[in-house]
Amino acid sequence: MERRQFIAAAATAAVVTDARSAEKLPTITWRMPSSYPKSLDVLFGSAELIARRVSELTQGKFTIRSFPAGEIVPAFQVLDAVQNGTVELGHTALYFFFGKDAAFTFETGAPFGMNSRQHSAWYVSGGGRELMTEFLKKYGIVSFACGNTGTQMGGWFRKEVRSVDDLNGLKMRVGGMAGRMLQKLGVVPQQIPPGDIYPALEKGTIDAAEFVGPYDDERLGFERVAPFYYTPGWWEISSQLALIVGQKHWDNLPPTYQAALRTACFESHVTVQAQYDVVNPQALARMIKRGVRLRAYPKPVMDACLRASREVMDEESAKNPAFRKIYEHYRSFQDQQNQWATVTEARMQNYQISAMKPPRR
Amino acid sequence: MERRQFIAAAATAAVVTDARSAEKLPTITWRMPSSYPKSLDVLFGSAELIARRVSELTQGKFTIRSFPAGEIVPAFQVLDAVQNGTVELGHTALYFFFGKDAAFTFETGAPFGMNSRQHSAWYVSGGGRELMTEFLKKYGIVSFACGNTGTQMGGWFRKEVRSVDDLNGLKMRVGGMAGRMLQKLGVVPQQIPPGDIYPALEKGTIDAAEFVGPYDDERLGFERVAPFYYTPGWWEISSQLALIVGQKHWDNLPPTYQAALRTACFESHVTVQAQYDVVNPQALARMIKRGVRLRAYPKPVMDACLRASREVMDEESAKNPAFRKIYEHYRSFQDQQNQWATVTEARMQNYQISAMKPPRR
Repeated sequence: MERRQFIAAAATAAVVTDARSAEKLPTITWRMPSSYPKSLDVLFGSAELIARRVSELTQGKFTIRSFPAGEIVPAFQVLDAVQNGTVELGHTALYFFFGKDAAFTFETGAPFGMNSRQHSAWYVSGGGRELMTEFLKKYGIVSFACGNTGTQMGGWFRKEVRSVDDLNGLKMRVGGMAGRMLQKLGVVPQQIPPGDIYPALEKGTIDAAEFVGPYDDERLGFERVAPFYYTPGWWEISSQLALIVGQKHWDNLPPTYQAALRTACFESHVTVQAQYDVVNPQALARMIKRGVRLRAYPKPVMDACLRASREVMDEESAKNPAFRKIYEHYRSFQDQQNQWATVTEARMQNYQISAMKPPRR
Repeated sequence: MERRQFIAAAATAAVVTDARSAEKLPTITWRMPSSYPKSLDVLFGSAELIARRVSELTQGKFTIRSFPAGEIVPAFQVLDAVQNGTVELGHTALYFFFGKDAAFTFETGAPFGMNSRQHSAWYVSGGGRELMTEFLKKYGIVSFACGNTGTQMGGWFRKEVRSVDDLNGLKMRVGGMAGRMLQKLGVVPQQIPPGDIYPALEKGTIDAAEFVGPYDDERLGFERVAPFYYTPGWWEISSQLALIVGQKHWDNLPPTYQAALRTACFESHVTVQAQYDVVNPQALARMIKRGVRLRAYPKPVMDACLRASREVMDEESAKNPAFRKIYEHYRSFQDQQNQWATVTEARMQNYQISAMKPPRR
């Protein structure tokens, strides 16, 4: 072999090697706007965790840049941005988009719906994800569960809620399906971005506001202007985060990268719930020490909300076949889960609570 | 450059390239014995899922071969096999090894301990894993959560348990800490492998047996020889699976492969619980239709078991500093979690159960 030939051969060999490994692991960068601001550090932390893990799993070749709400895409336009291809993927909770179609709600949870563990069972192994995937096709996206807050709180009120009548005329920051349900009881739902809730409560522009749970609520300081902290947040018993990917981008992703993204979402799914479970009780304890008045919705109020909830769900079912299809499956799964809970989990949990701190011998 | 020199240089360059990519993604095969047989398909399925996902995440270069209990290592020697380097990793539940040290219990759960979600919070974000990691160092292993059954059932009985006295003299297949606790109430605990439980119950060699939950129990056919099916399984409110890796093998694993294994465990952690939540209520419904008599332990029996449980935990704490250190942390975390549960989760769950199938309008 002549030297020149050898050089050519060697160069070709090198190119072949590079090309082969490049084909296996292309270097790509995707942009992922989140619907959450940096200040909601558990929620936005989930986006950062997924990005970090995917990079680690792919030797840094698959880079996902996460952006807090508003930085490249406004919070509530994440779905649009993924759908129209402005970005490859997004980090959100799909119930934000119930205005486009109420069926989005079921990806996240449902008022008087399943708790986070039941929701996860339904979504991961109970056929829920398949139903949602079918529904999401018309928006050109695929979705993966990547976290849950668990049952949220029932919101902050300037005055106590002693009866169903106390809800009548109340201006409350509450969105989605819950707003429609509370409207039936005379509540005037308001859509207000997180940063504007405090001044609205302070000025009395609104009388009440729901947000998330103790850890996130504490930072916004609501307790100073609306001292009654209600429970439970019946509209968000489960609030599941979603990572959404444009269908075409997903289909063109190498299987190894698909696996990396999907698996990283499972880690986030576990981690978000665990983090909230650690920080929420600590935040609540601090707030109670500072004088926050914890209140439970009276049973007649809960019952009225449940009736209003069923009405809205039934009305939506009557006019929206996609919603009805998912709701019927969801509802029947929920009944089975609740019956099962009475056998072991809830029975044991209630025993444990009743036996808390028993006298030690 | 002379041709010979060039060849040498090119060869060196090629070697360097190969070595670098080999260093990045070496082809390795690890063997992972499980403590579970193939017939426990959700539990053993977790081992298979982890192996499959790790392969997928590493382009097939990191192969884990999973083996059901007894195939290469007996069920209860998985820890020894990992510890002494016979295998690189294992799939088990660490409470099986409470005979070596009762502190192993806390990796899995504890009698009258936290439920699976609370346990996950403690383990993943509450400092539990750090405590367990410190404890596991002396066994030369690291561990990762990879599933949970949720609260198990309280076992099969040939006769009803109407009072604490009915436990006295009862021969029961039950292991671990629960066996020691029940001994205080006169139960004679027996260690019997799954396949031998049915004939032992049939012949009356034992009077009762605990196993897992409806889905796994149904297959062993206990209902034909011990028709009373008790709830709840207070000794396994959480039963967390563990993937254990020999410390040296773990330390030498490329970071990308460490990430693959760790992240795959999170997927399994979510999936096992979801699968059980789907199949358990279905199995229980089938069994009840066939005449299984579902019974709840009477409150005085639960109370006596709780007292016996506290006694054993306190006795162990008094003589075992490693146990005490973890138990105190675990217990205080549990108190906080249960208080928090009364605020939202348990409150909402109980409302949901009470409102199940309300009259539709």
